[in-house]
Amino acid sequence: MGKLMRVNMSALRVTTEDSGEYQGLGGRGLSSTIIAKEVPPACDPLRGLNKLVIAPGVLSGTSAANSGRLSVGCKSPLTGGIKESNVGGNTSQKIARLGFSGLVIEGLPEQGKWYILHLTKEGGKLLPGNEYCGLKNYELAKKLQSRFGEKAGILSIGPAGEMKLAAASVASTDVDGFPCRHAARGGPGAVMGSKGLKAIIVEDAGGAGVSIANPEKFREAAKKFAKAVVDYPFSGVLKTLGTNFLVAPINAAGGYPTRNFLEGTFEGADQVSGEYMQQVIAKRGGKPTHMGCSNCVIHCSKVYVDEKAQYITGSFEYETIWALGANLGVSDLDSIAWADRLCDEYGIDTIEIGQSLGVAMEAGVKKFGDAKGALELLEEVGKGTALGRILGSGAWVTGKVFGITRVPAVKRQGMAAYEPRAIHGIGVTYATTPMGADHTAGWTVGRNLASMGGDLHPHKPEGQVDASREAQITVAAMDSTGLCNFVNPAIGDTAGAPEAGPAFLEMMGALHGSPVSLDDLKALGVKILKLEREFNAQAGFTKEDDRLPEFMKQEKIPPHNVIFTVPDEELDRLFNF
Amino acid sequence: MGKLMRVNMSALRVTTEDSGEYQGLGGRGLSSTIIAKEVPPACDPLRGLNKLVIAPGVLSGTSAANSGRLSVGCKSPLTGGIKESNVGGNTSQKIARLGFSGLVIEGLPEQGKWYILHLTKEGGKLLPGNEYCGLKNYELAKKLQSRFGEKAGILSIGPAGEMKLAAASVASTDVDGFPCRHAARGGPGAVMGSKGLKAIIVEDAGGAGVSIANPEKFREAAKKFAKAVVDYPFSGVLKTLGTNFLVAPINAAGGYPTRNFLEGTFEGADQVSGEYMQQVIAKRGGKPTHMGCSNCVIHCSKVYVDEKAQYITGSFEYETIWALGANLGVSDLDSIAWADRLCDEYGIDTIEIGQSLGVAMEAGVKKFGDAKGALELLEEVGKGTALGRILGSGAWVTGKVFGITRVPAVKRQGMAAYEPRAIHGIGVTYATTPMGADHTAGWTVGRNLASMGGDLHPHKPEGQVDASREAQITVAAMDSTGLCNFVNPAIGDTAGAPEAGPAFLEMMGALHGSPVSLDDLKALGVKILKLEREFNAQAGFTKEDDRLPEFMKQEKIPPHNVIFTVPDEELDRLFNF
Repeated sequence: MGKLMRVNMSALRVTTEDSGEYQGLGGRGLSSTIIAKEVPPACDPLRGLNKLVIAPGVLSGTSAANSGRLSVGCKSPLTGGIKESNVGGNTSQKIARLGFSGLVIEGLPEQGKWYILHLTKEGGKLLPGNEYCGLKNYELAKKLQSRFGEKAGILSIGPAGEMKLAAASVASTDVDGFPCRHAARGGPGAVMGSKGLKAIIVEDAGGAGVSIANPEKFREAAKKFAKAVVDYPFSGVLKTLGTNFLVAPINAAGGYPTRNFLEGTFEGADQVSGEYMQQVIAKRGGKPTHMGCSNCVIHCSKVYVDEKAQYITGSFEYETIWALGANLGVSDLDSIAWADRLCDEYGIDTIEIGQSLGVAMEAGVKKFGDAKGALELLEEVGKGTALGRILGSGAWVTGKVFGITRVPAVKRQGMAAYEPRAIHGIGVTYATTPMGADHTAGWTVGRNLASMGGDLHPHKPEGQVDASREAQITVAAMDSTGLCNFVNPAIGDTAGAPEAGPAFLEMMGALHGSPVSLDDLKALGVKILKLEREFNAQAGFTKEDDRLPEFMKQEKIPPHNVIFTVPDEELDRLFNF
Repeated sequence: MGKLMRVNMSALRVTTEDSGEYQGLGGRGLSSTIIAKEVPPACDPLRGLNKLVIAPGVLSGTSAANSGRLSVGCKSPLTGGIKESNVGGNTSQKIARLGFSGLVIEGLPEQGKWYILHLTKEGGKLLPGNEYCGLKNYELAKKLQSRFGEKAGILSIGPAGEMKLAAASVASTDVDGFPCRHAARGGPGAVMGSKGLKAIIVEDAGGAGVSIANPEKFREAAKKFAKAVVDYPFSGVLKTLGTNFLVAPINAAGGYPTRNFLEGTFEGADQVSGEYMQQVIAKRGGKPTHMGCSNCVIHCSKVYVDEKAQYITGSFEYETIWALGANLGVSDLDSIAWADRLCDEYGIDTIEIGQSLGVAMEAGVKKFGDAKGALELLEEVGKGTALGRILGSGAWVTGKVFGITRVPAVKRQGMAAYEPRAIHGIGVTYATTPMGADHTAGWTVGRNLASMGGDLHPHKPEGQVDASREAQITVAAMDSTGLCNFVNPAIGDTAGAPEAGPAFLEMMGALHGSPVSLDDLKALGVKILKLEREFNAQAGFTKEDDRLPEFMKQEKIPPHNVIFTVPDEELDRLFNF
């Protein structure tokens, strides 16, 4: 398996070592294990004891479909707990193809000194980076591509990461070379910024590649797997409408948080839906379907363009469109696209900053529905004004500063585009995952929505904890493979996609040279969750951190006029394994 | 004993009830017991489940010397833990003389509605308060005095409290009617603001008075006690130089934190010392000695005036002068006095905001030493700008927003004017008190300073935990009496003030009608600390919250080049009782 690269920013030294005890781990499994083992849980996330781990999944760099996911791990400056933030694009495959299972960025350089890390088949090299300081991600990517070649994959931070704002992201280039994909949740960009690292450039030409125990078998299984994923109906929905297909069903369920979670349906849903967006992109000559990540066979990505067919943004997802749209009462898709672009430029989590803006609008800083005002607020982040820094520090800090108590956050991380009062299952995940309110940590929404064949009443506590636990275990394991979450439904659907699951396990077996079962994966998922939770406990987290905000247990949300009813004792049961 | 007044801001109803289970408690004993019993520990401090308790000490309202201390309790919006913030002035005596052992402010009014609470011998009455909105404390006090009479005592919040900033204070008028005394630590002003209460006006004429079991004995004991306190040499030092006498010995010990705790001595110490200040006040015709609190016999207060002998500020204490002086590298006493005045006007904790400014200066918002810049920053708070709100949210939030990790805070509360690396004992108190870094919660400085007869090496861990525990128990009990902390040295000095301790116990016995021993008081102190700590545990605090910031264990502070060396396990031993 791959080697580990250690990048010591204090000594400005890059070394390579065998994976040793981390052998066989990848993605979240690797990042969380290293953080749990090497970072003192109570340390300050922005000081020298924290580490930034960048880990391709174990299938990244292979021919496996949709295997381009990268895990970025650290102690989070937003939550104060362990963090794995996941991103697609073209960098995961490239790092893996260079023969690395992970990069570990350690220490702190002299204050004011900035560096870039250049990875090639010769290894890693730290180069002076001050000349790139202050650059936004798109211009930065362009400059680095003109210096290192257009094929280079780039991980980078924008001004928000340089400012060490707690919502700062690490951008990854997509297959077109645009820095529109972000490991954003929990502020890994701030940790990268604290380490004086502006960018990592990955040239994989001539790389050692990923060692596969049984290449023949792997190739066959990967082919079967790709076909099963492509043929699966859900993949077709994603290809046509993108992730934003969710607007209609979530809004219909009253679970589309509107105006800082004051309401559960948005009157402007039709103007921000997947269907509408698809029409706009097609009419304007954008890319209504598009491959954003290496080895993707689903092509859920879209390139959103302006009326002159000029690129505005890519990776324009459901949660982003919600955070910068309905959550602010904004239904102008062009404005939302520009807001997404600004977030990508500054390198900031679209979900978190959307929540910050929602809270600020509740405080009266701008009015709900003010699309232009929302863009102005985002520009404050780029300028690094006091207001911009507040917003860039996340929703929880924004609430503290403006005296607003309706802050939809858990463990100081803002929620995503699913209302937990209307969709209880996701509320359980928000409350209990070690990541802070994170929809990807256990996406139980399908179990709660009749329109998606759900079997659990969305407004009742029954069954939600078990559903969330199962989803959290699964995703912890899958986040270690490098596979995109969107293959999980096919893998799990033994009736609808009978070949997908077995083909996936065959790939894993062929990779490792010994059979891999679903039980093995479940055990891995449990192991990861346990060590993440233990890290958080040692960092000072208690069961009181596994709670939704008070207002969600007091204020009924229309249209169903429901509160969150899963009892605390039920939540505390989730990790009884 | 006194009754309890309940002020329900949701129902706009004022009721009076017997103390019941709270019988016999006063001050911190009462406020912490009510908060621990009636406020859900995990609740949001600025929502309806929190309560604000205003409790005179048991001796307040009597003829006991220095018995004018008032406890203001709540769940703190700054720390998230239980809070007792202590203030002098003239309000504690007046509330007690109306026959109340405490006021409990509950619930929340309709948003945007403000009230004032008028207390007289007839009881309490809520009156419309919107007309007073936005007023700074001095103008507010003047208006209320012109409406309710100059003798009325006033508790009030300034704009900071209205904005619900986490460092907002509750102001109390002093004996001259100036709102210069503040229950400031931990942000009780924000809780009062969340409850829509702009001011409490106390007219005690014709009040029931404090019921004393044995008035004759009490009078005698009180007389003896007052004489013992007045005769005690430490009282003389306080009378002459005020609390600011500490500059010289603390600076000499290398424990006077300078420029956000970068250094332990201040080159401008001579320009901000008690001796220098005394000369300035005397020369200009201010009041170099003055009674600030009802029944005070020490008169440590000073009225600082400008060159035309016009009042600038009162209650101009050591910690304030440090926070807005040396901590910012500022040595211009006039500027510092105006900074104190601004804090009193806006209703904000001088210590916390001084830390915020120190952190902001480290971030480069203004330069260390920029006295005018410091005043400009404070004015931002009054204006409620984004920057002002950051600063008013305390040092911890300021650090988060500006990406500064050198934040001298524990439990998100900023430290006071004693460097824990150079004076380990106070570091133990900062770390472990349930209050967040609070020097008054267990002032062990004297034990660490040879110049004050200290017996513990200031840079070594030995004995510090036991010293801090003893001090914390004592002060928890004394904060329940209503006596000022400055009588404690006399009470504790059996050799130097043999009459003080016995007279104090005689007063307590005569008040309650049964003997009170030192052991009784110790038991009370232990009980209070235990319930406060239990509240915090239920609010989610762990031993990780009982730690000094990381930089104090890594960065040596000049001139002694020492770090904080008390081991974590030692700190965890403090509450083993």
